[in-house]
Amino acid sequence: MKVKTPEGIRDYKTVWMRDSKVYLIDQMALPHTLKIFESDKFWKTTAAIKDMLVRGAPAIGATAAFGMSQAADEYSCKDLKGFFKHMALAEELMKSTRPTAYDLFYAVDYVHEKIKKSPSVEEARRIAYKESQTYAKTSIETCRKIGLAGEKLIKNGCNILTHCNAGALGCVDYGTAIAPITFAHRKGKKIHVFVDETRPRLQGAKLTAWELNQEDIPYSIIADNAAGYFMMKGEVDLVIVGADRIARNGDVFNKIGTYEKAVLAKENSIPFYVAAPSTTFDQKMKKGDLKIIEERPEDEVLFIDGVSIAPKGSKARNPSFDMTPARYITGVITEKGIKLYKK
Amino acid sequence: MKVKTPEGIRDYKTVWMRDSKVYLIDQMALPHTLKIFESDKFWKTTAAIKDMLVRGAPAIGATAAFGMSQAADEYSCKDLKGFFKHMALAEELMKSTRPTAYDLFYAVDYVHEKIKKSPSVEEARRIAYKESQTYAKTSIETCRKIGLAGEKLIKNGCNILTHCNAGALGCVDYGTAIAPITFAHRKGKKIHVFVDETRPRLQGAKLTAWELNQEDIPYSIIADNAAGYFMMKGEVDLVIVGADRIARNGDVFNKIGTYEKAVLAKENSIPFYVAAPSTTFDQKMKKGDLKIIEERPEDEVLFIDGVSIAPKGSKARNPSFDMTPARYITGVITEKGIKLYKK
Repeated sequence: MKVKTPEGIRDYKTVWMRDSKVYLIDQMALPHTLKIFESDKFWKTTAAIKDMLVRGAPAIGATAAFGMSQAADEYSCKDLKGFFKHMALAEELMKSTRPTAYDLFYAVDYVHEKIKKSPSVEEARRIAYKESQTYAKTSIETCRKIGLAGEKLIKNGCNILTHCNAGALGCVDYGTAIAPITFAHRKGKKIHVFVDETRPRLQGAKLTAWELNQEDIPYSIIADNAAGYFMMKGEVDLVIVGADRIARNGDVFNKIGTYEKAVLAKENSIPFYVAAPSTTFDQKMKKGDLKIIEERPEDEVLFIDGVSIAPKGSKARNPSFDMTPARYITGVITEKGIKLYKK
Repeated sequence: MKVKTPEGIRDYKTVWMRDSKVYLIDQMALPHTLKIFESDKFWKTTAAIKDMLVRGAPAIGATAAFGMSQAADEYSCKDLKGFFKHMALAEELMKSTRPTAYDLFYAVDYVHEKIKKSPSVEEARRIAYKESQTYAKTSIETCRKIGLAGEKLIKNGCNILTHCNAGALGCVDYGTAIAPITFAHRKGKKIHVFVDETRPRLQGAKLTAWELNQEDIPYSIIADNAAGYFMMKGEVDLVIVGADRIARNGDVFNKIGTYEKAVLAKENSIPFYVAAPSTTFDQKMKKGDLKIIEERPEDEVLFIDGVSIAPKGSKARNPSFDMTPARYITGVITEKGIKLYKK
């Protein structure tokens, strides 16, 4: 992704690994400060995921893969059996950081699968490093393809609404929902993006706006409440959002509020697309089930950047995801192209 | 309304006048501080409306009526012609504070109508004071009747969703959408309220939550994004909101986000009621027209309580109201009772 620095425009990834060190853009410091977090230890990388310095399914996946490579590096003996015990512990720790993140499990299992037949600790270490790099590269390539496929949906003069952050910061690069927007802009199409601020954590206002700002793509931040109004007014031509998980029947789990936007888009006859790697389809889940949705701490609602917005003693409910039934969705954009849902 | 003070529970109005002084609960200081703003001058009262120390259509109306009484008091001569010129200026100033507030115009015209045939300045002054008091009392009585009528819709065990603040703080007392909830609670019904925080100005989290807190009515604050999720989950039985203006065909203008909640309620077969004094019906408006909706300063979106939430240089769009077409509305609750919309 393009990043404006005092030294000019630079190309950044959200997360990368060099030697035994994992580097990532600290997303808690955005949008006001660009800070690179350096992790020289496996446990620091797990903490970065847990503390949400990195978020977004594909970005978490790549960070987890790099973390597993660090775990391999940290084993100091040559005993292969001991090594695999060490890795099993690391796996468990890594998977416990964000227990609902599907990509995290996928990435950890991916590295595990690749090293499990290694003849030596040294070889396993080498493979873990190589394969975690491959994992990240594949993720970038997937997003690039999503961008190229989705770009075709965006006409010149298009106003696109997006929710939460499904941009480069949520992936290793390019993003999912934002990739088509970036490619359309780079192609010279005149576009404008409505950015839902996305309470409670404001990933739209903080992260998506920051990304669009770096690319000089025109955008307007709106309160989540205003999306329906702009749809009714005819100012929104297209909605593109990301996804955390997609059931086999096409039901989509994504950031809280996605369902609201999808219902409103349908009501106003506006195409509603979901952009995500095809690995987001959970083959084990037949249809969307609200039971998997967890609620996060209520302070995310009751405080904004440390400022209390409600009377002392107030209770809050804070579901972080919702489920959008397939009937509200026009289609999905994956690295394989655009697939329209049957109506 | 009940207010918990260090000296025990006290009864408060949102705004009142004694002698030539207007008193109001400073809503900018809530939810953390209960501060009474005292205005001894007409211009201070107009400033309080302009700076939103008082907001909500009926509360603004009563404050404006009291302000007109202050304006009458401030005229120091006995010349009746000069007095009416002075009052005309005051009228113009008062109406310019919140040009889209329908009740403000109504209240100012109401006082004007009552004094226009006064034989002397002294008599006009007396009438202005008396009639502004009558205006406030009528407003309280209207809300009380809305509460009694609407209370019947609330069953024991009911979960009610409300948006923005349509409680006592938006009126002189009781509120509109909150009045039925308060009466149901006082009758001993077990209820729970989902409070939309209502970005950008957070009147739900700050004001509605404060009111419910004073009455010990159980409530949960939610991000505006989460309302649809709780509806889908079957946790919301009833929606009640207020209204700033209602067109003759039943289309409702209210705080931004109301339209979103109405569409979602219909989609989930949840009754959606609008509670408002019957004066909220604008007989001059045949049907809802989006043209009357103004956008407020973008900093209300870009900053929360002075804290910047978006990258420097970001643009925002900030419509403060939206229009909910009558087809999404189950019925209106006015002081005359419940009127169901024809389907």
